[in-house]
Amino acid sequence: MRDFWLPVRVYLEDTDAQGVVYNASFFRFMERARTEWLRAREIDHGEIDQEHGVGFVLTSVEAQFRAPGRLGDMLAVGARLDEITGARAVFAQQVRRGSQDGELLVDGKAEVACIDTSSGKARRWPENILERLNG
Amino acid sequence: MRDFWLPVRVYLEDTDAQGVVYNASFFRFMERARTEWLRAREIDHGEIDQEHGVGFVLTSVEAQFRAPGRLGDMLAVGARLDEITGARAVFAQQVRRGSQDGELLVDGKAEVACIDTSSGKARRWPENILERLNG
Amino acid sequence: MRDFWLPVRVYLEDTDAQGVVYNASFFRFMERARTEWLRAREIDHGEIDQEHGVGFVLTSVEAQFRAPGRLGDMLAVGARLDEITGARAVFAQQVRRGSQDGELLVDGKAEVACIDTSSGKARRWPENILERLNG
Amino acid sequence: MRDFWLPVRVYLEDTDAQGVVYNASFFRFMERARTEWLRAREIDHGEIDQEHGVGFVLTSVEAQFRAPGRLGDMLAVGARLDEITGARAVFAQQVRRGSQDGELLVDGKAEVACIDTSSGKARRWPENILERLNG
Repeated sequence: MRDFWLPVRVYLEDTDAQGVVYNASFFRFMERARTEWLRAREIDHGEIDQEHGVGFVLTSVEAQFRAPGRLGDMLAVGARLDEITGARAVFAQQVRRGSQDGELLVDGKAEVACIDTSSGKARRWPENILERLNG
Repeated sequence: MRDFWLPVRVYLEDTDAQGVVYNASFFRFMERARTEWLRAREIDHGEIDQEHGVGFVLTSVEAQFRAPGRLGDMLAVGARLDEITGARAVFAQQVRRGSQDGELLVDGKAEVACIDTSSGKARRWPENILERLNG
Repeated sequence: MRDFWLPVRVYLEDTDAQGVVYNASFFRFMERARTEWLRAREIDHGEIDQEHGVGFVLTSVEAQFRAPGRLGDMLAVGARLDEITGARAVFAQQVRRGSQDGELLVDGKAEVACIDTSSGKARRWPENILERLNG
Repeated sequence: MRDFWLPVRVYLEDTDAQGVVYNASFFRFMERARTEWLRAREIDHGEIDQEHGVGFVLTSVEAQFRAPGRLGDMLAVGARLDEITGARAVFAQQVRRGSQDGELLVDGKAEVACIDTSSGKARRWPENILERLNG
């Protein structure tokens, strides 16, 4: 349940004509952090589908925008597993300026569910995946 | 406070390698609908800045993903002013497949605040803008 | 070989901190126009894969940026089949402000090839597809 | 005129429903590499505007797509100053899989011009900028 922080540079593609990071860009950043969080636990989408026939599906996300991101900023994008139940997992996420101790820009949350990839239906986490999520 | 529905076609740019509409794309669609909702009330960002020295800032968004969007889908993206207070407005948003009576894909919410564009600080809606928001 | 023009509104998502339409956004617009050009000829990716086992793959694109697009602009995005050979097709594309007679913003080109979707290798257009492309 | 290579991970946001990296994503990657190339020469957009009243504007880009990028790939995105004249600079760009010695995915080119930021008109590079570009 340790925190994970991914450094992300703000490029022109992430900004908008209001001169700041566009709202949907933060959801892209938050997913990059969740992906790297999973990678650090050796949870790869393709592999868990092949081995276990399961996948992750994003069921909800939210973000509170506290302060704007700017072109050229280096951001720290955090992901922390906040809660895990039989078939779901909730990530607490943050975006901070500069580093994990920097100014808070975004407070977010993402909920993912485990699905059977052939039926698309929700199912419980395989034991092996659950261990790695909690690892 | 009437509902507004914007038709949006799903193009390749909106999808991801899981074969469905990517989560952040729905936030782009939701903003297109809010922008057109404002345009229908003749509220233009540039103009209200020049005339009143105010702007809108997005303070939070959220989305529950109920069913996936697919490449080529025609979507109906809804925006409805749900609540308005002195300095804030909350939009209820939905994305439905085909039309406003179609399958619910996303249930969302967006909160915007009124700011003084020179100071960047929150302020009350100018009377003229408030009337148009409620119009 | 008739011209096709798709109306595209510029939203915040399409712009960047330089206050104009971001370069990659124009490639998204150009693809929307090609997709609608194909749709008008009843060429659907899923269907031609199932019926003919073929697909389209983009082999090159280019754009000359003549004038900037702005937030709120209504654009006309054009696609015209310029050249078609055994296994390739070249589209001439333009983006104009306001309408197809408006100021030229972008002059572009896109080349697509026909591939066998099972092998991924280039192949000749099926006769049926070739007729519709030329139709 | 040395080559510069930026490592870029392919995330879900960069892919499309055809299961590969979406064409416009490569233009985002190519710009990240040019931005870092400039940063390595201490050329910052905000700073050169303030100090010299000049800016860079992208006048054309192109890409030949040789092989598809895949979800999870680590890419090397290259930028090399290929040619520089009084008011323009041309970058040769490549995207390779894994590293700068890996499989070639994209062969690209980007041309930028120097403009006077107050008039928007093309002008010659300030001597100081020209030295750093050639550095």
